[in-house]
Amino acid sequence: MLTTIADLRSFTASQHRAGKTVGLVPTMGALHSGHLSLVRESNKRCGTTVVSIFVNPAQFAPNEDFQRYPRTLENDLLLLQKDGCTPNGKTEVFVPEISEMYPRGFDTSVHTGSISQVLEGRSRPAHFQGVATVVLKLFLASQADTAFFGQKDYQQVCVIRRITADLNVPLEIVMCPIIREPDGLAMSSRNRYLTAAQRQQAVVLSQSLQLAETMLRSGTADSAAVQKAVTEKIQTAPEAVIDYVSIADPITLQELPAVESEAVILLAVRFGTTRLLDNLHYVL
Amino acid sequence: MLTTIADLRSFTASQHRAGKTVGLVPTMGALHSGHLSLVRESNKRCGTTVVSIFVNPAQFAPNEDFQRYPRTLENDLLLLQKDGCTPNGKTEVFVPEISEMYPRGFDTSVHTGSISQVLEGRSRPAHFQGVATVVLKLFLASQADTAFFGQKDYQQVCVIRRITADLNVPLEIVMCPIIREPDGLAMSSRNRYLTAAQRQQAVVLSQSLQLAETMLRSGTADSAAVQKAVTEKIQTAPEAVIDYVSIADPITLQELPAVESEAVILLAVRFGTTRLLDNLHYVL
Repeated sequence: MLTTIADLRSFTASQHRAGKTVGLVPTMGALHSGHLSLVRESNKRCGTTVVSIFVNPAQFAPNEDFQRYPRTLENDLLLLQKDGCTPNGKTEVFVPEISEMYPRGFDTSVHTGSISQVLEGRSRPAHFQGVATVVLKLFLASQADTAFFGQKDYQQVCVIRRITADLNVPLEIVMCPIIREPDGLAMSSRNRYLTAAQRQQAVVLSQSLQLAETMLRSGTADSAAVQKAVTEKIQTAPEAVIDYVSIADPITLQELPAVESEAVILLAVRFGTTRLLDNLHYVL
Repeated sequence: MLTTIADLRSFTASQHRAGKTVGLVPTMGALHSGHLSLVRESNKRCGTTVVSIFVNPAQFAPNEDFQRYPRTLENDLLLLQKDGCTPNGKTEVFVPEISEMYPRGFDTSVHTGSISQVLEGRSRPAHFQGVATVVLKLFLASQADTAFFGQKDYQQVCVIRRITADLNVPLEIVMCPIIREPDGLAMSSRNRYLTAAQRQQAVVLSQSLQLAETMLRSGTADSAAVQKAVTEKIQTAPEAVIDYVSIADPITLQELPAVESEAVILLAVRFGTTRLLDNLHYVL
């Protein structure tokens, strides 16, 4: 396990000297099958994988769940070991302290414009600035060749693609499919916050996305009609409070009045104090 | 001469493969002896030097001199050739179009906090955001090992050191001394804007800094007294309009009420529409 940026950089340099490419899987820990699918994809494509585990305070607002966000390092390391972790040499783990990532005097941030102002950006104004800054730090600290992110946080991937392209970071971004529970709920470290009743109701998210896809495939092009059907489906869950249901351009995330060949349907729904995301990329 | 980021990156990669380190000298062209001193320093320390020439629109406010900023590419290339330019193989030049640096959809910016809000940042609010963003792009596009900047833009170097450290950019920053005209005026591409009369008067900047150093060396620790003497000296020039005279901490640029062992004295003075900078790093 690496804990300093200096050690992380030496590790990557040694891998590069040995002719291996390095894949990076940035996580906040509390690992589940979704994260492990990213590690597997990285192990498939790259010579070595670095999994970073860092609950990044900069991407939480003061009223959010930074304090209670699940920290399960021991279990995370066990899961990674099963999936091909150190000392097998295939995967290394980077677990920095907050003071290693944000030393005294730290005073820089990375911003994206329109893409970070919609959807999650509207509900969580400083969120993507925190994400963009820490992810860029991880990219540059690790000197990885490829980084792997889950589609579950679709807008996050768009923001990271934007800064990577705009700042000429020499690194490829790979977006991996959403991993779901057997009943369809998208895996998330925050699912464990749900009560048993909320957990049952939360299945409406993926069900409403399936409904949207069926409508689009059967020729409904009008976004408002799809949005209405999705909203009504979610509202069948008694505790669901919708934050947004958006039918948007897959690159810019700007709302589409009508769906021609491609769209993303993005949802954010609260159950009590827990906020869940899901999305579906529709291609004709 | 390279014009695309892809070609720049291939060039650096080929130099690295040949075991050479790469030095970067970012400029806006209109080269003078100050720039050439940076190229010489880079050639001394690095196997290869890349000089970038790019008048960066993002660091000019709408009311500033972006349009009339001197563009003297042919002469710049001649000067660099004398100083060891292509095809000697020691120096390569990177001259991108605006659309290469800021393609359609570009929407990212890099910000620093307190250090970019004082001095130049107060007079030119978006300036350092533009500088930080383009310099980070040049660092990552070039994959240089070392970058060279002139002390004349002292605050700029502080901002660039800040973002480089904070974002874990694996690159060393070297600050090179101010190069001066025989009468003491700090070399600047903007000096050519001065009328003959203003050019003569502009010598008060370096003279006032010499006066400050003499006072500090002879035991005057009170910043207000030094500031008053510097101000009065500058005001002997009939066209001089002072923007600021600051006696500040060399790292944070926060004002120092008293000078103990170290300080930077920073000046910004207008002559007509031309704004000149100068500074002196005082160490006991």
